[in-house]
Amino acid sequence: VTPRPAHESIGLAAAAASVTANSSPAVRAQWMRASANRLDDHGEELVALAQLETQLPPARLTSELARTTFQLRFLAGESEGGDPFQATIDHPNADWPTGARPDLRRIGQPVGVVGVFGASNFPFAFSVAGGDTAAALAAGCSVVHKVHSDHERLGLRVAEVMRGALSRAGAPRDLLVPVTGRRAGKDVVDDPRVRAIAFTGSTRIGRALFDRAMRRAEPIPFYGELGSLNPVFVTDGAWNARRDTIIDEYVTSLTAGMGQFCTKPGILILPETDRALLVSALAERTRAIEFHPLLSKSIEANFYDAVYDVASVPAVDTLLSSSGSAGPGLTLLSTSADAILDNPAIAHREMFGPAGLIVVGARAEQYSNLSRAFGGQLTCGIHAEPGENVGDLISTLATQSGRVVWNGWPTGVSVTYAQQHGGPYPASTAPSTTSVGVAAIGRFLRPVTYQDVPDMLLPPGLRDSNPWSIRRRTDGLWGGPDLKRG
Amino acid sequence: VTPRPAHESIGLAAAAASVTANSSPAVRAQWMRASANRLDDHGEELVALAQLETQLPPARLTSELARTTFQLRFLAGESEGGDPFQATIDHPNADWPTGARPDLRRIGQPVGVVGVFGASNFPFAFSVAGGDTAAALAAGCSVVHKVHSDHERLGLRVAEVMRGALSRAGAPRDLLVPVTGRRAGKDVVDDPRVRAIAFTGSTRIGRALFDRAMRRAEPIPFYGELGSLNPVFVTDGAWNARRDTIIDEYVTSLTAGMGQFCTKPGILILPETDRALLVSALAERTRAIEFHPLLSKSIEANFYDAVYDVASVPAVDTLLSSSGSAGPGLTLLSTSADAILDNPAIAHREMFGPAGLIVVGARAEQYSNLSRAFGGQLTCGIHAEPGENVGDLISTLATQSGRVVWNGWPTGVSVTYAQQHGGPYPASTAPSTTSVGVAAIGRFLRPVTYQDVPDMLLPPGLRDSNPWSIRRRTDGLWGGPDLKRG
Repeated sequence: VTPRPAHESIGLAAAAASVTANSSPAVRAQWMRASANRLDDHGEELVALAQLETQLPPARLTSELARTTFQLRFLAGESEGGDPFQATIDHPNADWPTGARPDLRRIGQPVGVVGVFGASNFPFAFSVAGGDTAAALAAGCSVVHKVHSDHERLGLRVAEVMRGALSRAGAPRDLLVPVTGRRAGKDVVDDPRVRAIAFTGSTRIGRALFDRAMRRAEPIPFYGELGSLNPVFVTDGAWNARRDTIIDEYVTSLTAGMGQFCTKPGILILPETDRALLVSALAERTRAIEFHPLLSKSIEANFYDAVYDVASVPAVDTLLSSSGSAGPGLTLLSTSADAILDNPAIAHREMFGPAGLIVVGARAEQYSNLSRAFGGQLTCGIHAEPGENVGDLISTLATQSGRVVWNGWPTGVSVTYAQQHGGPYPASTAPSTTSVGVAAIGRFLRPVTYQDVPDMLLPPGLRDSNPWSIRRRTDGLWGGPDLKRG
Repeated sequence: VTPRPAHESIGLAAAAASVTANSSPAVRAQWMRASANRLDDHGEELVALAQLETQLPPARLTSELARTTFQLRFLAGESEGGDPFQATIDHPNADWPTGARPDLRRIGQPVGVVGVFGASNFPFAFSVAGGDTAAALAAGCSVVHKVHSDHERLGLRVAEVMRGALSRAGAPRDLLVPVTGRRAGKDVVDDPRVRAIAFTGSTRIGRALFDRAMRRAEPIPFYGELGSLNPVFVTDGAWNARRDTIIDEYVTSLTAGMGQFCTKPGILILPETDRALLVSALAERTRAIEFHPLLSKSIEANFYDAVYDVASVPAVDTLLSSSGSAGPGLTLLSTSADAILDNPAIAHREMFGPAGLIVVGARAEQYSNLSRAFGGQLTCGIHAEPGENVGDLISTLATQSGRVVWNGWPTGVSVTYAQQHGGPYPASTAPSTTSVGVAAIGRFLRPVTYQDVPDMLLPPGLRDSNPWSIRRRTDGLWGGPDLKRG
């Protein structure tokens, strides 16, 4: 499959966007379920292809594909229930305090073509058939997907399978159009027919594309996840009570997926502790890790660069540096709280791969300031014991991140109703939105209010008869689909 | 009152933001109601002051102040009910399809200090105590308000009254801090402590501030309303059935507030009609209009420039040009559909004041293309008769605007549940949000998910006991405050 030039692909997606915009959420949900089923049917083939291009072990890829198809079905169901559209009806009211109120009806409408940039590290779940695609399709949009260059064959094959499934289900296959190459990526960001961008990747590339989208004559929403350090704070109480467990779980979380997760616990903050004992415990635990090659040679090169840069800072020591058989092993660096508070930039360099920075000997009263020094995060974690006075710290962690994790680890982002994946910049360029969970759908809807429009000319979601049977708010009160006008 | 330098004002607002972030929506609602009551108490004084600076007639100012205090109370009530926070609880679930799900609880939290830029044309409703301020306070944020230079005395006095009311109600008075001057405005956009910007004004100034906010090391959301032409399309059927009424209502809407409304019907699209009859009907109707001076000399100068520029285009004719006693009268220009489709830029120049462009002789099949040529709008209007085939046109109008008005006029933006004020750029820099109506509150909230956090350390809105008694979604189901865990 040789993808077409971007402008042609966008044209196809724009035509498909008109079709899906005029379909019901239930029909779109069928299309998405058909896509999920077909991807599952092709599971073995796709996992084998993914393995070739990503070096990831098959078990991980198989579970990632299952997550991906679940996500398509889950978001399909959410859209079918109507929640993302936030349908709201105000009947005319002559006595409204600011003057007679007309009939006003508001509903989220699909924005049109969405440009999605897939991630290097999730060849399924954040790629062609991934979360952004699921959210866009559930909203009633079409997708032009810039396939990540590290797994282009897989991406194009996933697109082919999904386009076939869409077509067989009666949908326009161009609801999902893949493009490849840097030039095509820039064209997608620039094209006036593209109405929103979703991106998961590095701060450097993400910011460049964000700036590009903002420079358009007509800027468009840019939903970018640009990196996160995910600091985990350990209190005196927790460290005294269960340091072995903490070290064990920390190394497991840090090296999951060879540290190539946006939610890797990149910084661990510990109270004063015996350094020799710490190093020996970390080394002991590290021996149990099975190391794999990194996703690509360019990621490996960037990883070594980043580790070198951080390790070269005078205030940073190397605690541990193991080697893998076919690539890097685990590198653990350490520094002090004072060093970071003096120069927060030390901590800001994301080492995408199996490396972590441990802040040793931080005092409890420094924890909130440290959190602020680290900047915006997808997640902040805290390990503490009952009865410890950590209310203020938790409040601070919440101002710095999209998810606060208690006595746990940031890796593993469940796809649920209450999930939030996004936080202050650079964790997200749109921190009031999420890229995981049902709320992700809302990113690709734009509300439109209809004033005094006759019932038959309204979008179905706003008609009196509520043909989509969605939850709506009427004259200020939310009700089920059976709520009658009155 | 001499305002402090911006950095000091922002510091005060940041301290106040911490206090309100830890308050309940019900307490904040009391503060907002106290502010509204106090502003009403000072109504006569404030209206007199506004009259001096804006030239607006007292009746209009009195009703605008009533709208403003209603807005404070209405958004206070919405926040108290909890809807804007979208509290969502997922209980742990070992059988969740993507693997055991932890306890996840998500709630919108106030972003902190919001920088608000007031509008020239609504000295109350879109200014110091206006909609953006009401939404930010309802969200639990504090506001640094850049007072519009055209009504600075009024703005500072409104701030003084409101700050006094806040203080008496037990709130930090620095929930609302005024700043003045261009330099201060830029400082507000640049300051890292400011977490979002709300702006209502011109495309030129709005885009400059938007660009500034996007260039920050850490870009922040910029909720800008930058101008709109609000085209109104008249079908053959409507024109034949009731042209006199349409002309009458059009001139009324066009000249309301001397055409200084963001929702002024700047472009009227008519089918082929007798030009001489049209001009005489418009002239006849215009004679009944009482003209007032424009809001300021600079607005007047800009208005004359804009009218001159549009009128100078060879494809544009002047239909009517009346003069007022102390400023401009009504200017009506005309052009053809073909001229606009050839060169859409003709239509893009907003003439902020009593002027309109009438597209005469458009064919029905050109209407959708014309709508697209006009670009993003706050509103699009259509006048049609039952039985006319206008479904496709309405769909197109919806893709181009935030509000579609049927057989009515865009001026008059009711503050309700279903209102949407915002549309594709330049109508809004954040087209999935609104600056009027209850949904405006959500702009100043950022969701945070708490994973496995003990009940007593959760924000009150997420605790099992639901102490704020807000509507929440639990394990996928929305329920009232009485929904119990289980």
